Amino acid sequence: MLIVQKYGGSSVANPERIRNVANRIVKARNEGHDLVIVVSAMGDTTDDLISLMKQVSNNPSEREKDMLLSTGEQVSIALLSMAIKDLGCDVVSLTGAQVGIKTTNIHTKAKIASVNEQRLQLELDQGNVVVVAGFQGVDDDNNITTLGRGGSDTTAVALAVALKADLCEIYTDVDGVYTADPRVVPEASKLPSISYDEMLELASLGAQVLHPRSVELAKLYGVTLQVRSSFNFTVGTVVQEGSKMEKDLMVTGVTQDTNTAKIGLFNIPVKKRIAFKIFGALSSANINVDIIVQSAAHNNVKDMSFTIARSDLQKALRIIEWLQPEIGFAGYTHDEDVAKVSIVGAGMISNSGVATMMFEALADNDISIEMITTSEIKVSCIIKDSDAAKAVKVIHEKFQLDQI
Amino acid sequence: MLIVQKYGGSSVANPERIRNVANRIVKARNEGHDLVIVVSAMGDTTDDLISLMKQVSNNPSEREKDMLLSTGEQVSIALLSMAIKDLGCDVVSLTGAQVGIKTTNIHTKAKIASVNEQRLQLELDQGNVVVVAGFQGVDDDNNITTLGRGGSDTTAVALAVALKADLCEIYTDVDGVYTADPRVVPEASKLPSISYDEMLELASLGAQVLHPRSVELAKLYGVTLQVRSSFNFTVGTVVQEGSKMEKDLMVTGVTQDTNTAKIGLFNIPVKKRIAFKIFGALSSANINVDIIVQSAAHNNVKDMSFTIARSDLQKALRIIEWLQPEIGFAGYTHDEDVAKVSIVGAGMISNSGVATMMFEALADNDISIEMITTSEIKVSCIIKDSDAAKAVKVIHEKFQLDQI
Repeated sequence: MLIVQKYGGSSVANPERIRNVANRIVKARNEGHDLVIVVSAMGDTTDDLISLMKQVSNNPSEREKDMLLSTGEQVSIALLSMAIKDLGCDVVSLTGAQVGIKTTNIHTKAKIASVNEQRLQLELDQGNVVVVAGFQGVDDDNNITTLGRGGSDTTAVALAVALKADLCEIYTDVDGVYTADPRVVPEASKLPSISYDEMLELASLGAQVLHPRSVELAKLYGVTLQVRSSFNFTVGTVVQEGSKMEKDLMVTGVTQDTNTAKIGLFNIPVKKRIAFKIFGALSSANINVDIIVQSAAHNNVKDMSFTIARSDLQKALRIIEWLQPEIGFAGYTHDEDVAKVSIVGAGMISNSGVATMMFEALADNDISIEMITTSEIKVSCIIKDSDAAKAVKVIHEKFQLDQI
Repeated sequence: MLIVQKYGGSSVANPERIRNVANRIVKARNEGHDLVIVVSAMGDTTDDLISLMKQVSNNPSEREKDMLLSTGEQVSIALLSMAIKDLGCDVVSLTGAQVGIKTTNIHTKAKIASVNEQRLQLELDQGNVVVVAGFQGVDDDNNITTLGRGGSDTTAVALAVALKADLCEIYTDVDGVYTADPRVVPEASKLPSISYDEMLELASLGAQVLHPRSVELAKLYGVTLQVRSSFNFTVGTVVQEGSKMEKDLMVTGVTQDTNTAKIGLFNIPVKKRIAFKIFGALSSANINVDIIVQSAAHNNVKDMSFTIARSDLQKALRIIEWLQPEIGFAGYTHDEDVAKVSIVGAGMISNSGVATMMFEALADNDISIEMITTSEIKVSCIIKDSDAAKAVKVIHEKFQLDQI
């Protein structure tokens, strides 16, 4: 089999763990598999580099930030390759640029445009394990780009697609996908398998086990993902097309996302293209808007609230201030102390009343809901940040997810 | 003017020094110069990476070592570019690969084969200060290579050659080239100028202010070098063709090199091609042999001693052991506690008795000489390691180099 394995930062956090990962890789190699390994930066390396950066500049260029941060993965691939070689296994490390991972030129948030599999295939044909730097690529002018945090998952899936790999294993510090974060809900159950769509919603909604873009890409090209722990040999969770849709659980998981902030705009004059202007400006600044709620117009004015990532709040507020004279709304507020709690499950499509059960669980526990959004397979509520952990617990209990 | 400036590791050792260097660069830019900046890794970065590496592997692959160490300069160029940008100056950083610095494929000791100046010229034409990672390049298969310690000087000169720069300034932690290491001889004088050949000998003999290969390259292409300190604005030392040969000092400098070890082979049978076999094998392992002394043959056997870099000793001893059965010498010894003390000066060519003055200074101070080698512009003696500092002092005094 040709397997792409991805190891996250905690799996290679120190020399001992690097040697441990090398052992796992050589074991798989000795079982006869062809292997492409994708690695993140060691543990705190990225944070250390950011801290160093902040001592140099308050407003660093994003191109130079990519130049800086991409060194983290380069250190990992070199060290991991040394450890693999020490075990007598042929190995070669390659940076994103050397693999030919071409991306868009949006620094710090680039998207993979294509992978030139030639060098990879050449190294595999020569019997090498190939260790590739995750999270990074180059744009058309050969400038180094990064894919944003968690982008190594996306690198792994993109390589699996380019090489038509049989399997893409994502090694992390948890041993699979759970019905809720086990740190919040100790009773959470591990799911043996989950569909792409459910995983996509879970990942988007704050389950940090997989990067949403990687799931999207896996779904698009039908790459089977397996989420496993690098610290034990427990069977993990398989992410694949939901062929057993009828057996799906009504609710697969409960998530919380505290990287959320809310902005409210008051007394917006009812004119054409208002929403386009507001959300177009935010989108041009690469700010993703999540939930949008709009009141009915009253006296020719209306109110509007929306949520964004908390880390984008300052940038978003500058845009809102800049838009105010043109759009002519009376004022705005913002709230950082909010969180999004969500339930996900393909079974929701055919089960009415799932959302009601969620609202009931929250109401029974005096947790008030500020905003609601639903899709075919999820329901999300914006609540107070301080209620988030409790909310996840009571919802998990309500749907009896500890009994899977 | 188009100026290439090179800043060493101590000049960018921390965020404050990086901002200081950025200030100097922007000052030069505001004076109207086009600038290409070559930077080394920050202070102890390379040592830190090597220490991390040793925790992972005892016998690291040299290819992966280059992959690892080249990140040090990449961090420097990113941070320095951020600091320059903060001062309102357009700037772009480029790795060795991005500049198109092609090297031979001898990892950790690669030599620059060519520089593709296209990208550099494009960035200069767009008004950017270009900050380039020193010490690194790529081979024909796009594998990352490094030029060995001090290789950033060579990068700077190679870029000056490729761009036909008007001047190449080497910024370091001393403010010029001295007649001896001021830490050893406080009376040492700073030389206002020095010829390539003298600088080449001084650099090769242990004066660490410039990498010998960079001086060789500068001489070959007639690049004017200026050695200066990044910590003050003192005028440094100009290295250029010795047009004022008649005014040259008899002796320009005294150096010591403690990275020296001696190997002796005893009772070597007199056969053809013995020297070729020994030194060919060492050369194939990229070990530079410095001084070679051979005794006259006696009873059809002879003795031979030679010196190498102390860091190459273990590798060299393995080769000697391996050669012993084939060549059939009776035994060998090695000595790590030796140092090389040298005098350099273009004036020596026309002044007999210079070597004698050196030997006299050593003899007067009870320092015994183990090996001697001379060239047209230098005399080197191998002495005990523990005598090296004293030897430099008494020779410096003998030639009255404090009175320049």
